Amino acid sequence: MEIERRWAPLARVGVYAPGGSAAYPSSLLMGVVPARVAGVGTVVVASPADAEGGLNQTLLGAAALVAVDVFIVAGGAQAIGAMAYGLPVLGVAPVDRLVGPGNPWVTAAKLEVFGECGIDLPAGPSEVMVVADGTADPVHVAADLLSQAEHGPDSPALLVTWDAVFAAAVEVELGRQLAAAARRDILERSLAKGALIVLVPGRDAAVGFVNAYAPEHLSVVVDDVEEAVARLSNAGSLFVGPYAPESAGDYASGANHVLPTGGLARSCGALSTEDYGKFIQVQRISREGLAAIRDSVESIAQAEGLIAHKRAVEVRFEARP
Amino acid sequence: MEIERRWAPLARVGVYAPGGSAAYPSSLLMGVVPARVAGVGTVVVASPADAEGGLNQTLLGAAALVAVDVFIVAGGAQAIGAMAYGLPVLGVAPVDRLVGPGNPWVTAAKLEVFGECGIDLPAGPSEVMVVADGTADPVHVAADLLSQAEHGPDSPALLVTWDAVFAAAVEVELGRQLAAAARRDILERSLAKGALIVLVPGRDAAVGFVNAYAPEHLSVVVDDVEEAVARLSNAGSLFVGPYAPESAGDYASGANHVLPTGGLARSCGALSTEDYGKFIQVQRISREGLAAIRDSVESIAQAEGLIAHKRAVEVRFEARP
Repeated sequence: MEIERRWAPLARVGVYAPGGSAAYPSSLLMGVVPARVAGVGTVVVASPADAEGGLNQTLLGAAALVAVDVFIVAGGAQAIGAMAYGLPVLGVAPVDRLVGPGNPWVTAAKLEVFGECGIDLPAGPSEVMVVADGTADPVHVAADLLSQAEHGPDSPALLVTWDAVFAAAVEVELGRQLAAAARRDILERSLAKGALIVLVPGRDAAVGFVNAYAPEHLSVVVDDVEEAVARLSNAGSLFVGPYAPESAGDYASGANHVLPTGGLARSCGALSTEDYGKFIQVQRISREGLAAIRDSVESIAQAEGLIAHKRAVEVRFEARP
Repeated sequence: MEIERRWAPLARVGVYAPGGSAAYPSSLLMGVVPARVAGVGTVVVASPADAEGGLNQTLLGAAALVAVDVFIVAGGAQAIGAMAYGLPVLGVAPVDRLVGPGNPWVTAAKLEVFGECGIDLPAGPSEVMVVADGTADPVHVAADLLSQAEHGPDSPALLVTWDAVFAAAVEVELGRQLAAAARRDILERSLAKGALIVLVPGRDAAVGFVNAYAPEHLSVVVDDVEEAVARLSNAGSLFVGPYAPESAGDYASGANHVLPTGGLARSCGALSTEDYGKFIQVQRISREGLAAIRDSVESIAQAEGLIAHKRAVEVRFEARP
């Protein structure tokens, strides 16, 4: 008796690249590059046109770079439907799995088609959490919080610290950087919504808070940083030390920026090549092998009242005229 | 610059074990054993009581064997809710991921809580497909088809063959075994629903049919069997040769019997230890490392209009008084 777990890349994958008001070529790359590494046969991308009906040239350049097979110019639920059910008139077959973040309508549509095909994770607003103490630079931390706030008022940006003096310094610095910021209106609206700085009693409480929250992005800039990092078990992507801003991971560190949100980092990690294939269980059983497990199979089948399951083993050992 | 993918077992997992009219200790084991192998902290199991309010002793024995931490005596959507949101009054915390098959109400509830916690796959009715030619034994094949039919009229049991004589022999044998079967009423209702034997033009067409259908269970009993198996890319669990009945995999071959249904075998495999942990991305970036990727990060951030993302890198290199 032998059991093989055979890895097989998916035949067809659909990647949603959000867009409309802006274009995100980096999201297209994050969805397609691991597909190419895994050996996926056909990669379909869907992304909406801009207000003038055009497509961002950088986005198209990125699509060409990774040799996207089919590009569907549509966004929202209709794009998800087109990939999940295919476009038979155009010769586009249904995809096996849908990946990539999107707005709440895209996410709702993905949950609706889950079962028709596989999906990655329901995406919520992006989040960043910074755990820092007095050894961190308030200028860096304020800039990191503002870079998350740029995603809009639904995107939480939290500083967790046990150092009240440091917290005050970050607050001052936030005001200073905000005054000079390019997209001040968006940033101010974002920061106005909800708590920004969480003062905890100490290092242990900070670790507990992080693990309970399970943030998508987590920056850690504290004394004895590796000791803290080793105790952090729930986060999508961890950025260690003063020179690891989240934006490095968004674009160029080599990590994937499609990450679990809304606490899903408790159970899931970043999008990766594993999401582009599956293991097939292959069981090869000889007559002797089946004879060896026969009693177990028949006993459990009997206990579960599945008599025909038991019979399927018995008939293989019955003498026939 | 260094990127680590750190494996972390989940802290809390919920396993649904279907029941009510019958008990399935094997499903409990299939859900809990990989959790124990992966090193999950707390395992919560939910399963409904029988009509008299009691619990099957074999099920409880299985739960004890794998040291289940919390046993919730409830079935259906309320059981899923209890595990996803926790039972604070009883000190039961929400689980990080829910696994295990269930009826349509259980599946609907799992999709509803997806996002609050992770889930495995939406489960549909169980399926078996047998690909066989004249080298197979009609007695074995008929018994395998009947063992699937035992799951009820929604569970497809299909024979795919290009040998009309063999197909006829299986049909005769099905009638014979049915007449002697223990649960004849259920089996007859199941077999009455939908096509049972699919005659295809030849071996290649059979392979194409299997890969398009992507069955949960696939038995292959043909001449030159390994050549055929190598070309089958979509199936949850593959049973190779005359002595590998599906019931062996259900109970004792060492494979997991929680499998993708309804075509999801195109994108997913069996439940396994990988479902009980996640990879955390850990990025350690030095000043030199960030300097090396700085241009890439700033260019893409600029192209995507995310200026605060660009600033988060720039501030780290600006001279300050």
